[in-house]
This record gives sequence, C-alpha cells and structure tokens, in this order.
Amino acid sequence: MTYCVGMRLNNGLVFMSDTRTNAGVDNFASTRKMFNFNVPNERSITIMTAGNLATTQAMISLLKERTEAKDDRSPSIFAQPTMFQVARLVGSTLREVISYSSPGSPSSADTFSASVIVGGQIKGGQPTIFLVYPEGNFIEISDDTPFFQIGETKYGKPILVRAYEADMPFEDAIKLLLVSFDSTVKSNLSVGLPFDFHVYENDSLAQKSPTRIEADDDVYQTISSGWGEALKAALDGLPSYRI
Amino acid sequence: MTYCVGMRLNNGLVFMSDTRTNAGVDNFASTRKMFNFNVPNERSITIMTAGNLATTQAMISLLKERTEAKDDRSPSIFAQPTMFQVARLVGSTLREVISYSSPGSPSSADTFSASVIVGGQIKGGQPTIFLVYPEGNFIEISDDTPFFQIGETKYGKPILVRAYEADMPFEDAIKLLLVSFDSTVKSNLSVGLPFDFHVYENDSLAQKSPTRIEADDDVYQTISSGWGEALKAALDGLPSYRI
Repeated sequence: MTYCVGMRLNNGLVFMSDTRTNAGVDNFASTRKMFNFNVPNERSITIMTAGNLATTQAMISLLKERTEAKDDRSPSIFAQPTMFQVARLVGSTLREVISYSSPGSPSSADTFSASVIVGGQIKGGQPTIFLVYPEGNFIEISDDTPFFQIGETKYGKPILVRAYEADMPFEDAIKLLLVSFDSTVKSNLSVGLPFDFHVYENDSLAQKSPTRIEADDDVYQTISSGWGEALKAALDGLPSYRI
Repeated sequence: MTYCVGMRLNNGLVFMSDTRTNAGVDNFASTRKMFNFNVPNERSITIMTAGNLATTQAMISLLKERTEAKDDRSPSIFAQPTMFQVARLVGSTLREVISYSSPGSPSSADTFSASVIVGGQIKGGQPTIFLVYPEGNFIEISDDTPFFQIGETKYGKPILVRAYEADMPFEDAIKLLLVSFDSTVKSNLSVGLPFDFHVYENDSLAQKSPTRIEADDDVYQTISSGWGEALKAALDGLPSYRI
C-alpha cells in the first residue's frame, strides 16, 4: 500500500509520504512517492501518489517530459495558470495512463488504479490541495476537510481528526503526522520508512526539496517509542467506567 | 459494518460490541451483537458477531434452538466439554448458514459472510477467546495476540496496540475500549452507539448479562470529549521535529 497526507494550516501546506512499495509481502522495495515541480518565485507544486507503481511512475514521467519540451509547454504543469488547472492536468494524465493499461476492461482498471494528492501555490492564487481520483476528477481541501489522505488511511486517521488544529506551527504538524504515520507503520506492513515531508509556507513560492526522515532518526525514534507512554498517561487522566 | 473486540487480561476476559446495523447509509438500525450462553457455576460463554445480519441471526437462533431440546443436547453449546469444542460448533454452524444462503455460488458466499468472536470459560478449562472465520475454522487468543477485533478494525487498533497491558484492571480496559470504539465511531458511520460490554472474571463462572452504554452516558461523554484534549497534551510532551 502507501500512506500520504496533505494538510492545510493557516501558515501553509504540509505534505508527508512513506516510501514502501510492494507486490505481495514477499517482494517489497523503497521508492519515492513525493515529487516537486517548482519555478522559483512563480509556482511550488507538490504531488504525492498512491496505487499501482507502474501507473504512478508513468504519470509522473509524462508530467515531467511535458515540462521539458520548452517550445510546446502546453499541456505542461509549468504552463497551467491556476492550481485548479494543474489538478485537471494531473487528473487527465492519470486517467490517460490507467486507460492505456486497461483498454476496454473495467476490471483491470482497478488493478492499474491510483490516486494522487496535488497541492501548492501559483503566483496570484491561493495555496491549496486537491485529491485526484483515478477517473481524473478531484475534490479540493476546505476548512471542513483540512487534510487529505491516500493509501492506507484508516489507522492514522483518528489522531489527525482529534489533534489537528489549523493554527498549529509547522513543527507540531510534522510531529502530529509522524505519530499518524507511526501508528500506520505499526499496523500495516505495506507502509514503511523512510518518510518524505515537504513544508510550503504561504506566499513563499520557494524552491525547496522534500526532507527525508530515516528509520534511525533520533526525533522519530523518540516520538515512536514515547507515544505509547504518552497515550497511557493520557488515558490515566480520563475517568474510568465503573463496572 | 460493526465493531467488536474480545480481550484477554490477567484477571479475565472483556468483550465489547457496537449495535449499529445497516444496509446502505440510508437504512440503518440498532441490533444486539453480543450473546451470552451461561450455566451458573459451570460455563460462561460470550459470542459477538460481525457481517451479514441474516447470517449471524440465523447462526445465533440455531445455537439457541439446539440448547432448548433438552433430550438431544448434542450438538448443543451447553453440551460441549471444552471451549475448543464450542468454537468448533460455532464454526460449523456459521459455515452451515452461509452455505445455505449461497448454494454453489462462491461470489454470493462473500455477500452472506460473517465472522464471530467466541470466548469464555467452562469448568475445568482455562478462560479463552477464539476468532471464528466464515469457513468455520478459527484461531485462539495468545500472549502475543491478546485481543481480537472483527468488523471495522482499523481505526480503533492503534490505541489498543499502544495502551493494552495484560495486567490492567477491568475498569481501565473498558476505558481503553471506549476510546477505541469512540475513534471508530468518529470515522465510520456504520459503527454506532449504544455499546454493549461484558466482563468475565477468571474462574467466576458467573451468570452476568452484558451492560449497555448509551450515547448519553456521562462517563462515555467525558471520555469522548476529553480524549481530544488528552491527545493534544500527550503530543505536547513529545519532542518536535525541527524543520
């Protein structure tokens, strides 16, 4: 599987993805699932992918290839005027790749399916995040739905639902995401370290690369091992049900 | 869906189930999923069910009906000499009902599928819990796997993995389960209150009925509303990842 989260805060956007890919439990590897398309001072776009690896790699390769033909930058991700148009381009590219792998066969379309989180900011527009479905359509993040998850979404969701706050600083959001990812890793073998994260500060239009958190990272280790004790202490503070 | 957990502690067994049943989101109702088969000072058996409601109700009805034919108590759940034999009886009854609903059709077998947690103690044996699959086979609880879940298992699992301790008192186990159930209710509409729970103290062979926790229960409300704040406080105590 995979686990990726895109989150909107008052200060900006935060993206985190795992790196495990597998075909059965007896064949797994590590691969990047977070990709940046940046033009300094003009646009910062982050894409995260979940699903069939051949599909998502082909989609990213097509998106990249089309940025390199300078004379014909349409339909390039660098030529889209708004994040909405970027999401449409990502959606149509995703749908194109899936239908190429499964011509006329709805059941194999499931096999080659994938979903995508794409977010960022283009100069003159607002920072935002979209969740793109394999059919090419998509939904946008909102105050009521301030984060999107793809892949193995269930184990890591309760902590996000409870502890997310729009005004939390980036450092706290990363900590929250690490707990959410750690909960998922502990329950699903198909999600694994290292993790990649990317922080985008509103209106910065900065060209930054994702940061990688390895399994032996000190802070991650402390969070991972400390969370169990922290939870027990949190439980202790609540009233007991008398039986 | 459904959410049920059977848990083994040093002091005994704890069972909890939700009560929501639904056919689509536009048709839901409340129904009991926890059933007790008790003979005072001789056996205390608890069964919890998840899956197709027609299947699980038919299974429970068959098990009950066969306890009432006093002259022919075999294969009655009251006549089985061990918990292992009880699990075999539950498994064969479950398989019988599913195959009745789906004669010769593997795909409809999925539609009518169900799974069961059965646990308790019979005089002369140890208290134990089994997870019974629709095929009629089953696995037993162990020190490495001290709890079983059926139904919507994912949202509520991380807290159980982290905070379960074999030596926790019953009151703390109920509190832990309430947090696990509350996390599930907040993320899946097909799991809902009221909850039923049953506590079995080792070697008591007592005849007790399940206790019901309604949505407006004071302790549940306090736990549900307090857990978000408790989690935030727990997060505050962990180190931040510097970005």
